[in-house]
Amino acid sequence: MKLAIKRDVLLNELNNAIKGVSNKNLIPVLNGIKFELSENGLYLIGSDNDITIKTFIDKKDIEKIEECGEIVIYGKYIYEIIRKLPNEIINIEIVDNYKILIYTANSSFNLNGISANEYPRLDIEESKNPITINRQIFKNIIQQTSFASSLQESRPILTGINFKIDGDVLECTATDSYRLAKKNVHLKERFDETVNIVIPNRNLNEILKILNDNDEDMEIHIFNNKILFKFDNILIQSRLLNGTYPDTSKLIPNEFVVSFTVNGQDLYNVIDRASLLTTDAEKNIVKLSIEDDIIVVSSNIPEIGYVEEKMTVNKDNNTNLKIAFSSKYMMDAIRAISSENIKVLFNGEIKPIIIKDVNDDSIIQLILPIRTY
Amino acid sequence: MKLAIKRDVLLNELNNAIKGVSNKNLIPVLNGIKFELSENGLYLIGSDNDITIKTFIDKKDIEKIEECGEIVIYGKYIYEIIRKLPNEIINIEIVDNYKILIYTANSSFNLNGISANEYPRLDIEESKNPITINRQIFKNIIQQTSFASSLQESRPILTGINFKIDGDVLECTATDSYRLAKKNVHLKERFDETVNIVIPNRNLNEILKILNDNDEDMEIHIFNNKILFKFDNILIQSRLLNGTYPDTSKLIPNEFVVSFTVNGQDLYNVIDRASLLTTDAEKNIVKLSIEDDIIVVSSNIPEIGYVEEKMTVNKDNNTNLKIAFSSKYMMDAIRAISSENIKVLFNGEIKPIIIKDVNDDSIIQLILPIRTY
Repeated sequence: MKLAIKRDVLLNELNNAIKGVSNKNLIPVLNGIKFELSENGLYLIGSDNDITIKTFIDKKDIEKIEECGEIVIYGKYIYEIIRKLPNEIINIEIVDNYKILIYTANSSFNLNGISANEYPRLDIEESKNPITINRQIFKNIIQQTSFASSLQESRPILTGINFKIDGDVLECTATDSYRLAKKNVHLKERFDETVNIVIPNRNLNEILKILNDNDEDMEIHIFNNKILFKFDNILIQSRLLNGTYPDTSKLIPNEFVVSFTVNGQDLYNVIDRASLLTTDAEKNIVKLSIEDDIIVVSSNIPEIGYVEEKMTVNKDNNTNLKIAFSSKYMMDAIRAISSENIKVLFNGEIKPIIIKDVNDDSIIQLILPIRTY
Repeated sequence: MKLAIKRDVLLNELNNAIKGVSNKNLIPVLNGIKFELSENGLYLIGSDNDITIKTFIDKKDIEKIEECGEIVIYGKYIYEIIRKLPNEIINIEIVDNYKILIYTANSSFNLNGISANEYPRLDIEESKNPITINRQIFKNIIQQTSFASSLQESRPILTGINFKIDGDVLECTATDSYRLAKKNVHLKERFDETVNIVIPNRNLNEILKILNDNDEDMEIHIFNNKILFKFDNILIQSRLLNGTYPDTSKLIPNEFVVSFTVNGQDLYNVIDRASLLTTDAEKNIVKLSIEDDIIVVSSNIPEIGYVEEKMTVNKDNNTNLKIAFSSKYMMDAIRAISSENIKVLFNGEIKPIIIKDVNDDSIIQLILPIRTY
């Protein structure tokens, strides 16, 4: 392998590939980035066996391809070296077996590489009928649901986001069993098979970091045990989580005893202030009482003090209610809804609380109350 | 105590006073901020007994002073509450002994306070003959020396910065015994006494955080066992470190065997890249060889690889040299010198390395080499 390439061009793609590399992988070769140089260009692959990121630099963006070949280079070092070199043309070549020489006029790095034969076969594949989706819509789906997934490895299936496709509707759900976020979008075209898969939340968030902020479409290729995302010059493959995702379709009621409409940011601020006098150990519980068109949010830490926040809302009915919940969960739910006004709906002090966008039925947030009264 | 005050006005000063409060003070009352409301205005005091910050809000900036008085309020909570309230007028009053009520139209916080009588007497004093210094000059002194002080509590005196005044010259020195930074400035007026004190580095850095970026003077009031900094509406008192600061005046030689002049940023980048193949455990050692007008900086981690960086310099003499040193210390020293070109001076491989500004004799950096050749 021997090539000359502009520093910025290489850094840009290393910056993507490195996101697949975990720093402390038990399989040493996976601490590396695989360089594959062909006559068409340079592929860079970073993987931790759970997520695989493959990027491509076309030959037209490479100054000189002198000899094709492949090698694995320690990810952390090659990334930092390229990052700290000035934006000049950088020469990279394999010298003497698995030694890599990286040099410019004044700098010369000589790194120990690993044979590309030792790199695992990752079987990055494209399917025949991918789903096409606008990348901004995809970004929104993840941002509006992701936070509700679980961080606990005790129920691994809940650490993912459930993607269900039926006809032209993609439904995404995340829950940690105390709260739930659900978002539907219409696909441009009907999809022939029904899909019900669970994608690790962590991997979806890595994709968001790499996804450039333009308005172009991306492709999603679904397999039995893996999923491939394709955009720009990048392929990202993730494994799927095994197991059956809980059926959440019956959790969300259609009728409610009490509900009100309110400015989302104002309610967020009220709960944020009330949560100042709560503790993590006590799940940051705040109490909410609804009486006529006034809501009062309150909380206390006995040794510190107590707080009461009042707010006028647009109430839809005459019933009053007292209920308690995690301020953190409520703030996450409000933040996930981007529109100015939200609707909060209740069925009593031990029934789920629903938070909706007043103008958009495609997103729904649910949080379970905490019994204190 | 009873007052009404604009949120932004109070937050601004709380933001200063809170910097004196340590979050886990063993003396409970020192977790609080002392509010002292008189007819002239409101004093806020935060202290951890090591540093004390006292700020003042003049009565003209307070909406209403209804009843003078004083109380201690838990710093973390009062700061966060005021920060999260909207910019309205906030009412604060002592109700029912040591309870503090903080309220606006819709928010009401009720905090448990502590009697001001329990707050320690901090004896904040001004001296009759303070030193006057431009605050930008003061900032520079600290930034150009502070990093060289020690973080190890094993020799407490080295965790401070030595301030020496003789006539109209203030000399500041910091050293961790492996490197040294020294900066001289001329005072506007001669100071009658000779001064030789050591100020905790941590406290000087807190002052920099509070010091607004204007061009006005500040006052320094020196006592036997403490020092007071006065600027704007703020007083900051720090204890001094006990003990004798090492005499460093003879450490810096006047003659050198080898020296060169170089662009500081270029040399910094070369050492930064070479340091990529060093380890913290090995003190990030890089080797420097000087031959004719070429310097070569090199380093290696056996299992990873090695690096060689070349650079042309303006050499002052014909001697060649090989020497090794901590890349981190050298980079800190170069960064402390703000001018474009620096001079690096040597007296042999086991003698101190000196780094100077080519145009400014008032600053000098020294680092000890590490024996490897």
